[in-house]
Amino acid sequence: MESLVLHEDARSGNCYKIRLTAALLGQALERVSYDIIRGETRTPEFLSQINANGRIPVLQIGDRYLPESNAACFYLAEGSALIPQDRFDRADMLRWMFFEQYNHEPNIATLRFWLLYVGERNLTELQRHQLLPKRMAGDDALTVMDRHLADHAWLVGTSVTLADIVLYAYTHIAEAGGFRLRDYAHICAWLDRVQALPGYVSMD
Amino acid sequence: MESLVLHEDARSGNCYKIRLTAALLGQALERVSYDIIRGETRTPEFLSQINANGRIPVLQIGDRYLPESNAACFYLAEGSALIPQDRFDRADMLRWMFFEQYNHEPNIATLRFWLLYVGERNLTELQRHQLLPKRMAGDDALTVMDRHLADHAWLVGTSVTLADIVLYAYTHIAEAGGFRLRDYAHICAWLDRVQALPGYVSMD
Repeated sequence: MESLVLHEDARSGNCYKIRLTAALLGQALERVSYDIIRGETRTPEFLSQINANGRIPVLQIGDRYLPESNAACFYLAEGSALIPQDRFDRADMLRWMFFEQYNHEPNIATLRFWLLYVGERNLTELQRHQLLPKRMAGDDALTVMDRHLADHAWLVGTSVTLADIVLYAYTHIAEAGGFRLRDYAHICAWLDRVQALPGYVSMD
Repeated sequence: MESLVLHEDARSGNCYKIRLTAALLGQALERVSYDIIRGETRTPEFLSQINANGRIPVLQIGDRYLPESNAACFYLAEGSALIPQDRFDRADMLRWMFFEQYNHEPNIATLRFWLLYVGERNLTELQRHQLLPKRMAGDDALTVMDRHLADHAWLVGTSVTLADIVLYAYTHIAEAGGFRLRDYAHICAWLDRVQALPGYVSMD
């Protein structure tokens, strides 16, 4: 099997998704750290060799590089129970993974980054004007999840899939972005189910 | 085979992706139209029956509903040459599909929607302040694509995949959002290759 190297910043939930997927599968990952706040993923070397899009995580598989956290999780989980065998369920898992990158991460992860790492007093005027719209859109995303989880133990089918793993990553730390998880009872119960999975590893 | 019904607004590139995928595969799709500008995807009926997230497209497969355009394309294309057999290439295809929803669509599709359908004079102050950041982020996304296409005929491997189809949808109409496609020579040549595919259908 080819060596697996995760190029990451450990503070990023997108990087954590990949570590959690690998841990649940019992796969070893070598880790190389970058400080995104110091611009270490925007250097000419990083852009030319690792990811022209200037972002982490990137999963290195042998001498090939795979950007995009959810694509990396899919690569790792192929052939495992984390990807459903049923054709509809497999597409439905991807549905939640696209929802995560479109409706959830740009609101919930971005507010955490701004409030926890940039600092509210350092935000630009445009960022300050986006605080409320992103709060509302993030609460909309959490509401869609909470209603679904009201009568489903997992997002797709009857056992854990990548849909749960990738949405868990930024949901379980959403309070650092100012969201009140206690308002979402079904999400809280689902977070507990993820944390009870054999092989689960925490973010830090 | 179960019936396939596309719940859509024909002006949406996200809906067109699914029609183009089906056309390239020779699959028939029934179509049901909604006017997103008139809020027809936010009615109680739509939210309870079709998509709790209030968005189109939704692909209906028999009596089940699959939101998220890229998940619908994946469902349709399973088992076809539009999804690579190779494990790395399959994940790399998803990498470009997540890039499309994170880096491309929120900038390029949103500017087209604001300028073509909302109208510049009707934009809110927050939207007006986002015009330049979204223009720059959209040009960044097009630059990543253009550099990759400088020495690749297709985004993944050596033939067309869903990565090309889903990125084609909003790229080929990007000028309606104020982007200058002629600045991207390799993208222009790739648009021509997509349009020459057997079974290609245009957006209107």
